[in-house]
Amino acid sequence: MSDCIFCKIVAGEISAIKIYEDEKILAFLDINPVDPGHTLVVPKKHYENFSETPNEFLSAMMPVIDKISKAAMKATGAEGFNLALNNGKAAGQVVFHTHFHIMPRFPGDGHELWKGKPYAEGEMEEIADKIKENLR
Amino acid sequence: MSDCIFCKIVAGEISAIKIYEDEKILAFLDINPVDPGHTLVVPKKHYENFSETPNEFLSAMMPVIDKISKAAMKATGAEGFNLALNNGKAAGQVVFHTHFHIMPRFPGDGHELWKGKPYAEGEMEEIADKIKENLR
Repeated sequence: MSDCIFCKIVAGEISAIKIYEDEKILAFLDINPVDPGHTLVVPKKHYENFSETPNEFLSAMMPVIDKISKAAMKATGAEGFNLALNNGKAAGQVVFHTHFHIMPRFPGDGHELWKGKPYAEGEMEEIADKIKENLR
Repeated sequence: MSDCIFCKIVAGEISAIKIYEDEKILAFLDINPVDPGHTLVVPKKHYENFSETPNEFLSAMMPVIDKISKAAMKATGAEGFNLALNNGKAAGQVVFHTHFHIMPRFPGDGHELWKGKPYAEGEMEEIADKIKENLR
């Protein structure tokens, strides 16, 4: 898409520090890393988000993410990583071209996961039923 | 693994509200949801984390995650979702059996993503080179 920053990176019109590239997939460093080595993995073809991306692309991204996350941990000395994808504005998606974040993590780096809270009585079963209805 | 809570859910020894099941994969509701409809997707076979999980399982999980995330959004009226996986204790992993979180999201639900900050001069290129060395 002509106004998509990640499409411009794929096309070489905007520079990025690339980590990995194959026919379908490109990976490059995030310029504002949560922790050093924070890498974005994108399909080269433009899809707005995860939900719009064909399953074959999503599946093909997994071995690449596995390979890069291991290399990023070795390279940075990280002891873990978070893999994250934000689907839609309500989920914090800012660039509307499917991208996974690989974020190397270090003990004491201060990032905290969201806290959950229990369902009200009966709510959990009701929601599960609704999800299952929509899976059919 | 005998002391793994997710293996016990797979085996039916601990109850869970299941959403989806096939030969390789199980999905069930998180009992402490970040937002209603928060679903965990796990390989039925025990692997400690993403890095230990064979690529074929990771790839097989994507179409299932796609299907469930769409159903969970329809069921809950969510406008987006976050897909997340925590690999290792340093990344906040608590149950050491590979699991993706699908978290439906609603505008104004108050969850915020981590903020990144720019690299120091030259640091980005240096880290990229180290990651690329470790990819070989």
